Amino acid sequence: MNDPIYGFITIPNTFIFNLIEHPYFQRLRRINQMGVSYLVYPGAQHTRFHHAIGAMHLMQQAIYVLKLKGVKITKKEQNGLLAAILLHDIGHGPFSHALEGLLLPSVSHEQISLVYMELLNKEFKGKLDTCIQIFKGEHPKKFLYELISSQLDMDRLDYLKRDSFYTGVAEGNVNSERLIKMLNVVNGELVVEQKGIYSIEQFLLSRRMMYWQVYLHKTNIVAENILVKIMQRASYLIKIGANIPCSRALKEILQLKNSTYNTLGNPSEFLSQKRMEQFSDLDDFDIISAIKEWKNHSDFILRELSRRFIYRDLFKIKMSKTPITNELKKQKARKIQKKLGVSKQDLHYFLIEDQISNQVYNKKTQKIKLLNKNDTWSYFSHQSDPFQGQFLSKKVIKYFLCYPKI
Amino acid sequence: MNDPIYGFITIPNTFIFNLIEHPYFQRLRRINQMGVSYLVYPGAQHTRFHHAIGAMHLMQQAIYVLKLKGVKITKKEQNGLLAAILLHDIGHGPFSHALEGLLLPSVSHEQISLVYMELLNKEFKGKLDTCIQIFKGEHPKKFLYELISSQLDMDRLDYLKRDSFYTGVAEGNVNSERLIKMLNVVNGELVVEQKGIYSIEQFLLSRRMMYWQVYLHKTNIVAENILVKIMQRASYLIKIGANIPCSRALKEILQLKNSTYNTLGNPSEFLSQKRMEQFSDLDDFDIISAIKEWKNHSDFILRELSRRFIYRDLFKIKMSKTPITNELKKQKARKIQKKLGVSKQDLHYFLIEDQISNQVYNKKTQKIKLLNKNDTWSYFSHQSDPFQGQFLSKKVIKYFLCYPKI
Amino acid sequence: MNDPIYGFITIPNTFIFNLIEHPYFQRLRRINQMGVSYLVYPGAQHTRFHHAIGAMHLMQQAIYVLKLKGVKITKKEQNGLLAAILLHDIGHGPFSHALEGLLLPSVSHEQISLVYMELLNKEFKGKLDTCIQIFKGEHPKKFLYELISSQLDMDRLDYLKRDSFYTGVAEGNVNSERLIKMLNVVNGELVVEQKGIYSIEQFLLSRRMMYWQVYLHKTNIVAENILVKIMQRASYLIKIGANIPCSRALKEILQLKNSTYNTLGNPSEFLSQKRMEQFSDLDDFDIISAIKEWKNHSDFILRELSRRFIYRDLFKIKMSKTPITNELKKQKARKIQKKLGVSKQDLHYFLIEDQISNQVYNKKTQKIKLLNKNDTWSYFSHQSDPFQGQFLSKKVIKYFLCYPKI
Amino acid sequence: MNDPIYGFITIPNTFIFNLIEHPYFQRLRRINQMGVSYLVYPGAQHTRFHHAIGAMHLMQQAIYVLKLKGVKITKKEQNGLLAAILLHDIGHGPFSHALEGLLLPSVSHEQISLVYMELLNKEFKGKLDTCIQIFKGEHPKKFLYELISSQLDMDRLDYLKRDSFYTGVAEGNVNSERLIKMLNVVNGELVVEQKGIYSIEQFLLSRRMMYWQVYLHKTNIVAENILVKIMQRASYLIKIGANIPCSRALKEILQLKNSTYNTLGNPSEFLSQKRMEQFSDLDDFDIISAIKEWKNHSDFILRELSRRFIYRDLFKIKMSKTPITNELKKQKARKIQKKLGVSKQDLHYFLIEDQISNQVYNKKTQKIKLLNKNDTWSYFSHQSDPFQGQFLSKKVIKYFLCYPKI
Repeated sequence: MNDPIYGFITIPNTFIFNLIEHPYFQRLRRINQMGVSYLVYPGAQHTRFHHAIGAMHLMQQAIYVLKLKGVKITKKEQNGLLAAILLHDIGHGPFSHALEGLLLPSVSHEQISLVYMELLNKEFKGKLDTCIQIFKGEHPKKFLYELISSQLDMDRLDYLKRDSFYTGVAEGNVNSERLIKMLNVVNGELVVEQKGIYSIEQFLLSRRMMYWQVYLHKTNIVAENILVKIMQRASYLIKIGANIPCSRALKEILQLKNSTYNTLGNPSEFLSQKRMEQFSDLDDFDIISAIKEWKNHSDFILRELSRRFIYRDLFKIKMSKTPITNELKKQKARKIQKKLGVSKQDLHYFLIEDQISNQVYNKKTQKIKLLNKNDTWSYFSHQSDPFQGQFLSKKVIKYFLCYPKI
Repeated sequence: MNDPIYGFITIPNTFIFNLIEHPYFQRLRRINQMGVSYLVYPGAQHTRFHHAIGAMHLMQQAIYVLKLKGVKITKKEQNGLLAAILLHDIGHGPFSHALEGLLLPSVSHEQISLVYMELLNKEFKGKLDTCIQIFKGEHPKKFLYELISSQLDMDRLDYLKRDSFYTGVAEGNVNSERLIKMLNVVNGELVVEQKGIYSIEQFLLSRRMMYWQVYLHKTNIVAENILVKIMQRASYLIKIGANIPCSRALKEILQLKNSTYNTLGNPSEFLSQKRMEQFSDLDDFDIISAIKEWKNHSDFILRELSRRFIYRDLFKIKMSKTPITNELKKQKARKIQKKLGVSKQDLHYFLIEDQISNQVYNKKTQKIKLLNKNDTWSYFSHQSDPFQGQFLSKKVIKYFLCYPKI
Repeated sequence: MNDPIYGFITIPNTFIFNLIEHPYFQRLRRINQMGVSYLVYPGAQHTRFHHAIGAMHLMQQAIYVLKLKGVKITKKEQNGLLAAILLHDIGHGPFSHALEGLLLPSVSHEQISLVYMELLNKEFKGKLDTCIQIFKGEHPKKFLYELISSQLDMDRLDYLKRDSFYTGVAEGNVNSERLIKMLNVVNGELVVEQKGIYSIEQFLLSRRMMYWQVYLHKTNIVAENILVKIMQRASYLIKIGANIPCSRALKEILQLKNSTYNTLGNPSEFLSQKRMEQFSDLDDFDIISAIKEWKNHSDFILRELSRRFIYRDLFKIKMSKTPITNELKKQKARKIQKKLGVSKQDLHYFLIEDQISNQVYNKKTQKIKLLNKNDTWSYFSHQSDPFQGQFLSKKVIKYFLCYPKI
Repeated sequence: MNDPIYGFITIPNTFIFNLIEHPYFQRLRRINQMGVSYLVYPGAQHTRFHHAIGAMHLMQQAIYVLKLKGVKITKKEQNGLLAAILLHDIGHGPFSHALEGLLLPSVSHEQISLVYMELLNKEFKGKLDTCIQIFKGEHPKKFLYELISSQLDMDRLDYLKRDSFYTGVAEGNVNSERLIKMLNVVNGELVVEQKGIYSIEQFLLSRRMMYWQVYLHKTNIVAENILVKIMQRASYLIKIGANIPCSRALKEILQLKNSTYNTLGNPSEFLSQKRMEQFSDLDDFDIISAIKEWKNHSDFILRELSRRFIYRDLFKIKMSKTPITNELKKQKARKIQKKLGVSKQDLHYFLIEDQISNQVYNKKTQKIKLLNKNDTWSYFSHQSDPFQGQFLSKKVIKYFLCYPKI
């Protein structure tokens, strides 16, 4: 398979090939990796399908490098790793993070991924046992899990590189292949060779940069928030019995949202095979097609929000390091109510207040470890000059207010 | 604006900015530049929006280079060139070439582009006069048209580079910026400096390669043909009054197709503003969303074709330099009729025969000219060693037959 | 002119072309930009000639960008800037920094550059007046000097990018063209636009990384120190009247070194035109050719050091964050004296102790300024999260001891 | 080892490491891969050392790919291949092709490489037996030789890519890694998979382009010819007993040239170990350092040619598809004799007539083979459209005359 970033990607065996061919996985071809970012960075059109394949490619490299260094990884564990990284995001719905928690409240995409893995495991007659064990963090070899989920897992190493590549934000470029060449395992835990310290520093800085410059870009935040408001409005209109033209798959999920499912307890019971089949029919195309129809809907709020989204006539945004003042909110509220004739209870569709935050490196969980000469390791954060002290653990918060320019 | 290929792209002025912001142009964000190629090359997700912006960027460079060399281009002509290259493909419908001639038979996308330009010209109060004059080839300065449409126009220089970049087919990479630096104008016609001869040879070879390896890739041909058959079936079912769930925009165009519009003569009369508004609502999302619904339709043919398209369970293809033998066709026909229970008249949905062809360089039209030392020019094809003789003008034809693997 | 990094480089006018053609400048073709680094990074073979041309290319870009933003730069100032950046390193001798201070003690390469500029100014009849004024920091427009010499001058922006490119140390890659696009001038001083903050952070981290990973690489330090010792020995042998085969240019400079010139006061008096002509004949080829001859010399010390340098049979090095212990030094000294039969006073040729240091960002001099919205500026170091605090101003020192493996 | 082109290059084992460390091989660090091309393309400073390491890297990849496809290659053969590609050019003297045949007339660099291999084989106690067998084309597995020497050998795949990279001539870029991925072996012979046909076409076109644009660039030809004339003059002056300052190694080879050695028959007898040791001391530094001295020599011809070479004040060149006319030659001769006061017999130093030629693909020897589906192969030249017919086998000849601009 051809990849603009890595050149050729090899599918290692029939098992992996069959996973890729499966409709659950093919669906990822229709889910944009970066949600609505293409409205800011027109190149950001790559899919979750492509990212998952890319992460699997990096996993093959990591396995090759670690085995060269004498780390024992059985054939079974290899397939487990490859399947786990391939399927780690299979539970993502349309527009990924933007609509997560809205379409299926109180269920995370990781939980849904796990349900899909279990369905596939039945279909593939237990061949995903090790994959699931690794994904759940229950495998005795801890580094297998760390390759799937940690500060330097193959997921991050692909998506940061890929997102930087497709957006054209060159400073975010991560030298993933170099970082992988410096991986090793000591006492069952993933470590990075000492000389990799500069590469890790660059990696963390690139990651922080991608957050502020791309993922949390002003226009991106506005578009995501309008998208959420559109779906909330549609969901509400369905609830009150209005006619909301959209695909069957989308209608079902919006109706479900209004039901009481999320009080039912254990999501894996709730997420039945039938419901998973339905969910696997849902992707970005349902959302965009619906919004295109809705931009002519008789409901003003749905129509106006949809029109603005499709024609990229987005809201303005005011960002600040301190909470938005009441004064500003009141001023904007008055203007919107007056100009748009929106009731107080519907004001939230046009005056959106929230906050975003980012933290470079979470010292608490899965700290990066550097290999010392004597086969012990120490924490990266203790050895890096620039990443010592407050900077690393500091959580930066920004407050914002979105509203139409009227 | 950020571009993975060129770095930064500058929007030169408010006029161009407003064209880009216009809903007609924003629609191109939802039309894939390469149709169904992403089924072969997962990276091929770039849009016509991005391509048009890229071609405009190259046009800015060409204008800069030519002016440095003393070629006179007025401010008005500059804006004309930029608008013309920006809008040259605005008439493309969903899935571009694959469905062209099917959704709107007997109307080319260039004709539709022209109608859009004229609508925009009204809206922009005559500011597109020069643009339209250039686009129609009616401007007295011939090279202005050649920058828009010729063997080395900015359209080709962007799409070949871009398609090569996103598919990852490195051999197709074209050094567009270098070719542009070698452009000049002699007696009002576009020429390339003598030393550019190798770059042109490489360009033509890359182009030929992209045709055989990418645009005419087996899987691409199969997917395009299935797509066409799906739309033909849907159109037929609408005609006979069946219920075909799809977006309003798509339904209208499919109904129109069944009407007698195409016997009405002059397309620019037929293509009324209202119809153009409708058409501007139609994009890849309508098509894919419809097919997703149709994969559960009660009509076997529509359902089966749709299912195969969405789940990428495509047909096989037999390609050959000679026409497909009757023997093979009969054998496959018997098998399909037997296994699928398809009637003879519906056989064409599952047994598709056609041919493709490609010609590296059309000597008849718009030959590339090389600048001699004494300010005259001579034809590239007379000076290039490898591109002399039969090879250039030879049209290569390949015949194919598609059918399900059953 | 072709450049692997920037594509084409244009020579802007005849004046600059004539400077480049001048023998003083052509000499830079024979001086490696990175000294002995090619012994570690075989790709590091680029010359000072290439770097100076590259820096001039970036200067052209900077001038273009600043003028677009309305900054006034006269034709004369432009030529001054281009000449100044082109000639800023013309005073470098063979192996640049490694032998600076040894071949011509107490004269810096900047002083020699200035003398060359003055000689050229005579030859070019005053055309370098503005160039010299800028180079000396005496031009009333402060930003002109800052483009030549500051934290973000065109010299650094080229050499960091170029050294990273040729060594293949991808993490050191600096997005110079992007940084230049963000330059501006406020109140006559060079500033960077606010959104450039991430790029500056990356730049500083890359720079720090290049220091530790490349410029201060262990093998590099060893090779440089052996080179210095070879020249010291040759100089000593000349002093005592031994026959030291080498080029005329090298012999003269080594004899000069032994003279009392450096007590003569004003270097610009001392650096007569005749002496400058001689010096302009001296380059890496003299040094390497001499060492090749010396590897067969009858003096053991000169022979042994030369042989080790040419055959890359280098010393070992022990590096440490604390000063080298006397114990280790004594132990190594005993071994060397015993095995090599070296006298105590000659021990320093084989047992080299010294220290290296690096500081990311000198807060005292030429701090980077960020442009605020209201056309004021503030210091970068006050706004950057990771570059606040101790990290920036902290000078990291490492101690080392080199000795042959015997 | 770091490489700007391939990233990391791994040294596969101690045997190969020791070959690289050997002084014979380290000498290649001081021989420029592209001779005097740096006078045209300032980036072309890479060495034969770097190229040999790069070719070895590609050989590792080829071995890996072929073994994956089931081709049997023993450990011994692997080391043979790696050593053979590493040492294939070890016999090159300073300025490679330019001075080949002049410094050691009637001995090719391949013959010298073989002598070095045999010397190394003694030192490494027979470990190079297989290497030598492959290099001589005497190994029963024919494809081993083809990997070392054929139209698509690892030598070419590296040097074309490397030369294109360092000169910045992007059109010459060859996708070596892709071509290698398409290699296979059928009946003991190296073949390329069918789909590789486009890549081969691009490769041949790139190669042809590099010849005309780089290797046979006008300025390159002039500089090479002046270099040859300088060495001829120096050799003549030595013969007549003049004092010619230069390194011992260069003096010996120039004296040898004047002796009768080349009538002695078998070169491998003539090329004694002692002579090879001497030769291994000779590199670009001897030549350039000598010419720098000679630019002040009392002999006018030696001085003038040397000065022009060092200060890049080169001759003009007149190129033509037809032989240079006598008229032009006489005119230039008169002028040179008059202005420079050169005698008729010395005229050839300043009026150089010769021809260059290039052939894209030699159909006679080592034709490229394409793998068919049924495990047979057919010749590439029979299947490629553009590379059929006259173009391929046609030898293009150009005639030239060089002379000083006076």
